[in-house]
Amino acid sequence: MACKGIDPDTYFDQNRAPANLQQAHDAVAAFLARLPRDQPIVLVTSGGTTVPLENNTVRFVDNFSAGTRGSASAEQFLELGYAVVFLHREHSLQPFSRHYSHGPEGVLDYLEPDGAGGVRVKAAYAPRMLADLERARAHAASLLQVSFTTLSDYLFLLREVSLLLAPTGPRSMFYLAAAVSDFFIPSHSMAEHKIQSGGGDLTLHMNQVPKFLRPLVKNWAPACFVVSFKLETDQQLLAPKAKHALDKYGHHVVVANLLHTRKWQVWLVTRDRDPYLLEISQDQLRRGHDIEQDIVAELARRHREYSSAE
Amino acid sequence: MACKGIDPDTYFDQNRAPANLQQAHDAVAAFLARLPRDQPIVLVTSGGTTVPLENNTVRFVDNFSAGTRGSASAEQFLELGYAVVFLHREHSLQPFSRHYSHGPEGVLDYLEPDGAGGVRVKAAYAPRMLADLERARAHAASLLQVSFTTLSDYLFLLREVSLLLAPTGPRSMFYLAAAVSDFFIPSHSMAEHKIQSGGGDLTLHMNQVPKFLRPLVKNWAPACFVVSFKLETDQQLLAPKAKHALDKYGHHVVVANLLHTRKWQVWLVTRDRDPYLLEISQDQLRRGHDIEQDIVAELARRHREYSSAE
Repeated sequence: MACKGIDPDTYFDQNRAPANLQQAHDAVAAFLARLPRDQPIVLVTSGGTTVPLENNTVRFVDNFSAGTRGSASAEQFLELGYAVVFLHREHSLQPFSRHYSHGPEGVLDYLEPDGAGGVRVKAAYAPRMLADLERARAHAASLLQVSFTTLSDYLFLLREVSLLLAPTGPRSMFYLAAAVSDFFIPSHSMAEHKIQSGGGDLTLHMNQVPKFLRPLVKNWAPACFVVSFKLETDQQLLAPKAKHALDKYGHHVVVANLLHTRKWQVWLVTRDRDPYLLEISQDQLRRGHDIEQDIVAELARRHREYSSAE
Repeated sequence: MACKGIDPDTYFDQNRAPANLQQAHDAVAAFLARLPRDQPIVLVTSGGTTVPLENNTVRFVDNFSAGTRGSASAEQFLELGYAVVFLHREHSLQPFSRHYSHGPEGVLDYLEPDGAGGVRVKAAYAPRMLADLERARAHAASLLQVSFTTLSDYLFLLREVSLLLAPTGPRSMFYLAAAVSDFFIPSHSMAEHKIQSGGGDLTLHMNQVPKFLRPLVKNWAPACFVVSFKLETDQQLLAPKAKHALDKYGHHVVVANLLHTRKWQVWLVTRDRDPYLLEISQDQLRRGHDIEQDIVAELARRHREYSSAE
């Protein structure tokens, strides 16, 4: 069994909890308490985590992710009636506003003076923005946003939210789309100040991040429906690694995808069936169809099966 | 002389130019050709560069910078009559829209339906947005934006723009506020695919990035007025490192600042004078006064002296 690196509990002992942990706990608890009893729940994680190289952080290792998949998926879950806890990287894409925040244009490019001292959205953008604004408002009561930056923030928040979701059992899905670092520099071996560049080359030793899917599935939220993601660049590794993860962690589905085709092709991998291919055409893609619609619809279907079988 | 690592020319031979290089060249050349002959010019660089750890990039080392200093400074240069080439990290803060793009609120939080099928900016935000919109429009002809992501993109674009600015001589200022990586992984020794985490710990060997300020000042744009930035976390190192850089590269000013006080305290360091402290009060800061107003005003003054002395 390849179980290298430190124990998850040791990780929490050796790292500092994020400043927003208690606030996030209270917000999630209050959010869950307000939900109708039969509303399905999903925790969507989104965006990449950072690993600081210095305690006074100037440099960090980051994972590529704008939060496209997570934010688009959160919208779809809301449309299907889910309550969504959206645990996302600060400044990454968010549901409903995602089309407007990372475009080549700045915010102001959508706007113009209305001639009467106010500002309005240009006519070319208004219909779509109006639709997104109305969808955002319609779903506001079913969406809770919590943000993280570092790997450590993310892991503390993931554990906290998992423990709060645990009592909801099969009613809750975990949709772990965040791009989480595999390696980290333990806080005690980190440089205190900015690493100086005068000394020539730099060698960084990083430890493997403990596999948190294991305690999540076994201890934190054992009755919930858990979906993890696997992004690779080498197609040969994709299916074997997905199957291996399912065997190792005992969760329910791996959404497997390749870096360069991820916007139109994913496989849902489960232990007992062949990988289930979801694919959209280039034409659908151009017309603005997000593959997340298909992913989320299929997972919601499987989640319903799972909860009604309990 | 501490001149470790490879030669800048070798770097350009061993790395690939960014896809937007020719387009950026043409845009900058056309922009410069359109300017009134007596308008001062500044190249403002802004945001952090990334260093990919893999050729098919999933992970990268990043430098902390939202682009706050660069975007605020670009606004100030425009207000003082400069033409600005704004070479910035993709999705980092931009002049005039900077107050709206990285806030806790998404774009949609500023907006509401106008009740007649359109969308308007909420009354609480409208006056400030209107003012920023009008400033952006007033200065549109004097602002050219060029974007980068990786260290390599940045260096190729910096050289290209420098060579285009060179003929303008003392009329042009370089305001190098971008947070540029000090270490990189040469393309030929990078992993082809996503680094696998099954094998335990990870050791990264990074080379020191060649000091590009040297060829910039000596060869690319020798008659221009060059301002570099130094960010440290350790106050003891700040002044000596700034003086050392001036001696080594032969440029004109170092703007020196500390990570945790950079929003209200900077020193302008030159070879022949004591460091010149610029400082604003916490009260000014709260009332929205940007220290970049003071930095840019003082540098513009020195730039005028420099150009009239030629």
